[in-house]
Amino acid sequence: MDVLTKTTEGITKHALEVIKKINPEQINLMIEKIIDSDAIFIVGTGRSELVGKAFAMRLMHLGFTVYVVGDVTTPAINDEDCLIAISGSGETKTVTLAAKTTKDVGASVIGITGNLNSTLNEYMDVAINIETKTKEAWKHYTSSVLKGDYDDLTPMGTLFEDTSLLFLDGLIAEFMVRLSKKEDDLKMRHAIIE
Amino acid sequence: MDVLTKTTEGITKHALEVIKKINPEQINLMIEKIIDSDAIFIVGTGRSELVGKAFAMRLMHLGFTVYVVGDVTTPAINDEDCLIAISGSGETKTVTLAAKTTKDVGASVIGITGNLNSTLNEYMDVAINIETKTKEAWKHYTSSVLKGDYDDLTPMGTLFEDTSLLFLDGLIAEFMVRLSKKEDDLKMRHAIIE
Amino acid sequence: MDVLTKTTEGITKHALEVIKKINPEQINLMIEKIIDSDAIFIVGTGRSELVGKAFAMRLMHLGFTVYVVGDVTTPAINDEDCLIAISGSGETKTVTLAAKTTKDVGASVIGITGNLNSTLNEYMDVAINIETKTKEAWKHYTSSVLKGDYDDLTPMGTLFEDTSLLFLDGLIAEFMVRLSKKEDDLKMRHAIIE
Amino acid sequence: MDVLTKTTEGITKHALEVIKKINPEQINLMIEKIIDSDAIFIVGTGRSELVGKAFAMRLMHLGFTVYVVGDVTTPAINDEDCLIAISGSGETKTVTLAAKTTKDVGASVIGITGNLNSTLNEYMDVAINIETKTKEAWKHYTSSVLKGDYDDLTPMGTLFEDTSLLFLDGLIAEFMVRLSKKEDDLKMRHAIIE
Repeated sequence: MDVLTKTTEGITKHALEVIKKINPEQINLMIEKIIDSDAIFIVGTGRSELVGKAFAMRLMHLGFTVYVVGDVTTPAINDEDCLIAISGSGETKTVTLAAKTTKDVGASVIGITGNLNSTLNEYMDVAINIETKTKEAWKHYTSSVLKGDYDDLTPMGTLFEDTSLLFLDGLIAEFMVRLSKKEDDLKMRHAIIE
Repeated sequence: MDVLTKTTEGITKHALEVIKKINPEQINLMIEKIIDSDAIFIVGTGRSELVGKAFAMRLMHLGFTVYVVGDVTTPAINDEDCLIAISGSGETKTVTLAAKTTKDVGASVIGITGNLNSTLNEYMDVAINIETKTKEAWKHYTSSVLKGDYDDLTPMGTLFEDTSLLFLDGLIAEFMVRLSKKEDDLKMRHAIIE
Repeated sequence: MDVLTKTTEGITKHALEVIKKINPEQINLMIEKIIDSDAIFIVGTGRSELVGKAFAMRLMHLGFTVYVVGDVTTPAINDEDCLIAISGSGETKTVTLAAKTTKDVGASVIGITGNLNSTLNEYMDVAINIETKTKEAWKHYTSSVLKGDYDDLTPMGTLFEDTSLLFLDGLIAEFMVRLSKKEDDLKMRHAIIE
Repeated sequence: MDVLTKTTEGITKHALEVIKKINPEQINLMIEKIIDSDAIFIVGTGRSELVGKAFAMRLMHLGFTVYVVGDVTTPAINDEDCLIAISGSGETKTVTLAAKTTKDVGASVIGITGNLNSTLNEYMDVAINIETKTKEAWKHYTSSVLKGDYDDLTPMGTLFEDTSLLFLDGLIAEFMVRLSKKEDDLKMRHAIIE
């Protein structure tokens, strides 16, 4: 299982390198925006949407009011809300349209993206830069994986998505410490019917 | 398009007959439970879940706090909440498990079902009886449709699902009148990003 | 429960009138496109998406290969496929973007819409006109409902959505007769785990 | 951002340790079952379902026929299919019911679980053991995170879910090498409308 274990190792080393480089001021701003908002809206497509939903569930566990764009119970967004927009390319139409509308109503946009020169960037108040395959991060990836034909076995947005999930689960830890929440507090909000 | 138009006609005639027979006291109770609850949870599977989601959206438009069981942002249910459980057979496991848990925490269960002798029935505080294919209702259906081989072209739960949707959209009208809501009030809550 | 029963009656009378007016040649074309396609893709948002999903399930039961746009297992669309695009206004961005892409790859677009002068219209090969609130259809609606303040208790797309669902369930009946399928044939494909 | 970065580091170190301990014969068996099956069904709830969906998408990209349990287009499972059942506790009702039904029809169950003494275990043909918080793995986690109050900031199933996702993305790499697939092959199947 050399390919499997080495790829997994490469993904994690790469992720830690990328997360280390994210601007801490922007992370602080993201935390503050989330705490100060009436409700947090989350948008993404494909695997980025899945990452957003994994984060949405934990934010709900923490006691926040959270909506996933596209869910039937998601209301209109208001100026006291914020949108977390997740898109590796920053060009996903569903995401950029949601970001534009969010700005139009006067709410804040927190962008999680690998491309700061994108359409999404025009609308972002907070920029979380998940910049994959930078020279440095890629070195960490390739130091693990098998050489030759096997040097890109993380197709499409895999590195972006896995790094984003790890970052957001790390952010949940930050919230727990800052809000003095224990696991038991989160468990109380966990869905008991599913 | 004889088959299409006659089937559609049969479905609607059947639905109106079934809805006419629903106990108005139970409908009143359902309305009161929804208004009095902190949050409304909705559970169903397959096409019954889709019907539940269509209703969930309108309840949200009316200003209620609504959750669909299985959505990532759906929290634990509490004793001040209610569950709307939709199951034609009243035996769908996901639905009966949710109903049982709801009773265990002391919350109310509103059952929408075609079978009042089912497992779901054990947990219901309010019973909305969508009893399809009764002798009378079936007569209305077959008076429309083509005879012979063509007399059951509404496979599986079709009559239950379509009747439930029509009933629930009629119920939204009741809510609008009782709560003095106009279409514009609902539009204000309608998702603007999707 | 006057408001409830009369609204339900109004919705169904209106629906039958609208369905009667749909061009039968276009319905025939829709049936042929579906039968001739390798795979059928379905797109809509909000309650229109729920209607599309209800139809998608029955098409799957009939043995067709069906994908809902946005589902994680939905692949790229090819020129031998078709897209069923559901939008009352014909202007929903998600829907018009999907229709445009479908045309770009050379596949067919079946539009189900209430507005034949819309962006969606530019891409449609087949037009199913669910034209709500026409003078004639509206007369059928209002002949049932309470007068005065109560004459529009079907907010937003309600009439479009309910009419579309009834039309599509009627279409399933057409498929069953044309393909000589019995309910038991459909049941064999019905999900047994849910 | 000490808490964030150290937690992320702890999650990844823990994950690599857990993945290293998974029985390679069981992984091989999982790969063979997937390749030999007519269709692959995936079931999970909450964040485990999200992980399953992320894997489902990549399997689809690889050319497999994949269904997520609960999706409207998911058909009945047959004896030539397999089910991938994801549950940390191995006791999630939706998952164990699906596994039981799968065995009843004669299909195979691949279990991804942290608990090999669970109900799910009774039905599993292949066991992928994502055993979190073992003495050894936990040592790797705590060597990274802050001590004291901060030593469990990965609430509920976080370690199970993140480890499962990393394992499954590593498994995709294995599939790519064994099936001689390049990223471009996967891209061709990637949804172009979303």
